[in-house]
Amino acid sequence: MKRIHDVLLVQEQSKGEAFIERISSKRPLFVCTIGTTETAKIPGISAAGKYPEFTDYTPSADVELLLLEECRCIPSVPMTPQGIPTPALVTMSALRLANMPVLVANGGCKISPHVPYLDLGGKPGRDIRTGDAVDDAEEVFWRAKVAGENLSKIADCIVIGESIPGGTTTALSVLLSLGIDARGKVSSSMMENPHELKIRTAEAALEVTGLKFGALEKDPMRAVLCMGDPMMPAFAGLVVGAAEKVPMLMAGGTQMCAILAVIKALKPHVLDNVAVGTTRWIVNDQTADLKGIVAQIARVPILAADLDFSQSRFEGLRAYEAGAVKEGVGAGGAAIAAMAKSKGTITKEILLKEIERNYERLVSSK
Amino acid sequence: MKRIHDVLLVQEQSKGEAFIERISSKRPLFVCTIGTTETAKIPGISAAGKYPEFTDYTPSADVELLLLEECRCIPSVPMTPQGIPTPALVTMSALRLANMPVLVANGGCKISPHVPYLDLGGKPGRDIRTGDAVDDAEEVFWRAKVAGENLSKIADCIVIGESIPGGTTTALSVLLSLGIDARGKVSSSMMENPHELKIRTAEAALEVTGLKFGALEKDPMRAVLCMGDPMMPAFAGLVVGAAEKVPMLMAGGTQMCAILAVIKALKPHVLDNVAVGTTRWIVNDQTADLKGIVAQIARVPILAADLDFSQSRFEGLRAYEAGAVKEGVGAGGAAIAAMAKSKGTITKEILLKEIERNYERLVSSK
Repeated sequence: MKRIHDVLLVQEQSKGEAFIERISSKRPLFVCTIGTTETAKIPGISAAGKYPEFTDYTPSADVELLLLEECRCIPSVPMTPQGIPTPALVTMSALRLANMPVLVANGGCKISPHVPYLDLGGKPGRDIRTGDAVDDAEEVFWRAKVAGENLSKIADCIVIGESIPGGTTTALSVLLSLGIDARGKVSSSMMENPHELKIRTAEAALEVTGLKFGALEKDPMRAVLCMGDPMMPAFAGLVVGAAEKVPMLMAGGTQMCAILAVIKALKPHVLDNVAVGTTRWIVNDQTADLKGIVAQIARVPILAADLDFSQSRFEGLRAYEAGAVKEGVGAGGAAIAAMAKSKGTITKEILLKEIERNYERLVSSK
Repeated sequence: MKRIHDVLLVQEQSKGEAFIERISSKRPLFVCTIGTTETAKIPGISAAGKYPEFTDYTPSADVELLLLEECRCIPSVPMTPQGIPTPALVTMSALRLANMPVLVANGGCKISPHVPYLDLGGKPGRDIRTGDAVDDAEEVFWRAKVAGENLSKIADCIVIGESIPGGTTTALSVLLSLGIDARGKVSSSMMENPHELKIRTAEAALEVTGLKFGALEKDPMRAVLCMGDPMMPAFAGLVVGAAEKVPMLMAGGTQMCAILAVIKALKPHVLDNVAVGTTRWIVNDQTADLKGIVAQIARVPILAADLDFSQSRFEGLRAYEAGAVKEGVGAGGAAIAAMAKSKGTITKEILLKEIERNYERLVSSK
């Protein structure tokens, strides 16, 4: 696969190359959009917390890590039940190396982060099986758009990631309602991707609202409202507000597809200034199909940071190679941006060393 | 008085000249820090609202105007009882002309703005006569500092203003507790400056806490906590966080003195990268003494936008010449930044035309 620096050009290669060129040596801003949803507490859906209630803390702990290099709302860093640490560790390491600023955008969290964050007037999300998942999606989208317009006047480019446990399930249901066939194609942070459970949950959301596959193709905000999550309107609004002016790297895995589909239905032309940035682990995920979903939506480039933890001295990092975690908190996009900003001086080896240094300090010493 | 473009060099002229040089043709960010305090509801203290309860809405309405060019939380724009409009009208006009981005930093407001804002974990302030005016001042300061550090990585310079009714009275009490003689020297947005009432209120705050003039010289956070307002820790934290790296134009009148004194006690060296930016109306205010207070604190330059509304076709604007309003919402600093960013292409005449255009749309048509 063609590459620039340690970035793989996965799909729409020439557009991807041009995108990397546009963000090279520039002054990027990293935005992390967060939210919580009760959907994450359905047993078996999410690996983001050892106990379902932990998922309320994960997004806030993740962004605390990005801003402070330690968490405040929990005593350690977020981990899977197997002790594999949050991808925020990768993001934080990339941001540190490249000296990139961070802004947190809160779409609606049960536990607010103990750091400064952009309030967008949102509330935590409900279980999508209620068919009434997100409050005030239009308002949050609109406020995020206003924020995006303003941020695009000072940042040269924006890398935007997310942290919301349960996010691939809400993404699946939104994609189905918008007519995108994503059954069995969304990723999971667990090694065993619980497709059946996700599909059952998404279909329950469609059923309770009386909606069929594709029924909301022209009404993406209703899709978010009924069966999305509070991260989505914040994320989509920021992209729509800023991408008119600056390149936006949408940093994430298959959750990005739901955002792309929402944007396409609202403001398709801004997608010309957008790329998806993810990790090699997502692209190689045999249990999912990022490329297949994106191709159904728009011809946006997919870039992947060629991260490789197979030789790491820490078992908790080698687990990424076996299919744990894979992506999240904009890890892949942050790595890509660090490589592009430094014109390749930050390599995947240098990044791994920094990640291991932080792993040692934050995880293995606990 | 020496000038550059339409900016008057009021104090520390050579430093002021160098400061304008440093921000010329640069990419500034405008930050508006807001808060509310029950102190504003003491009858006669503030002109920010027709009725005391209106002061809860003023800061939010002001920042809505900056971001949207209209208010959302109230049907019109904030005005004095005489119908003279908020200085946010001046700020908004300067920001529009210079295409400057805006970020709202919320230190603690009773009514939150209906636009995106940076939440710093603060709460609305109490009457300073309780001696327990501000909750969590340390935490808000610290969060604002983290935000300032991040913002300084993307903005070339930051212009930071405030909107908080009652702010000169809380400033007076903080200044007294820090040992700065500001009795009879703080400005007022009213033509008749109610010095006696302000001094009585500030002294009541000192009395209830058992503190004497200068008692908190070494403990500025306690001064804010006991007799300040929630805008102060947010404002001071942003300056301390960002001024290590980028020039900060502190946009306001005599309220800036309290912030300067707090910063001086915490991190004096950052004041080398700071200037105070205000209006000609503040500098010429015969009922106050900005220069005299600043000179007691630090050798920071004072710049003043040479705004002149005497020839305006609107009575509500000509009233500024008679001593109404004078400053607020960073009006003077925004005007200075617009002039510097445009290398003087934006003159005071051009600015007045834009202000009149907006006045006509927002005020006279109502």
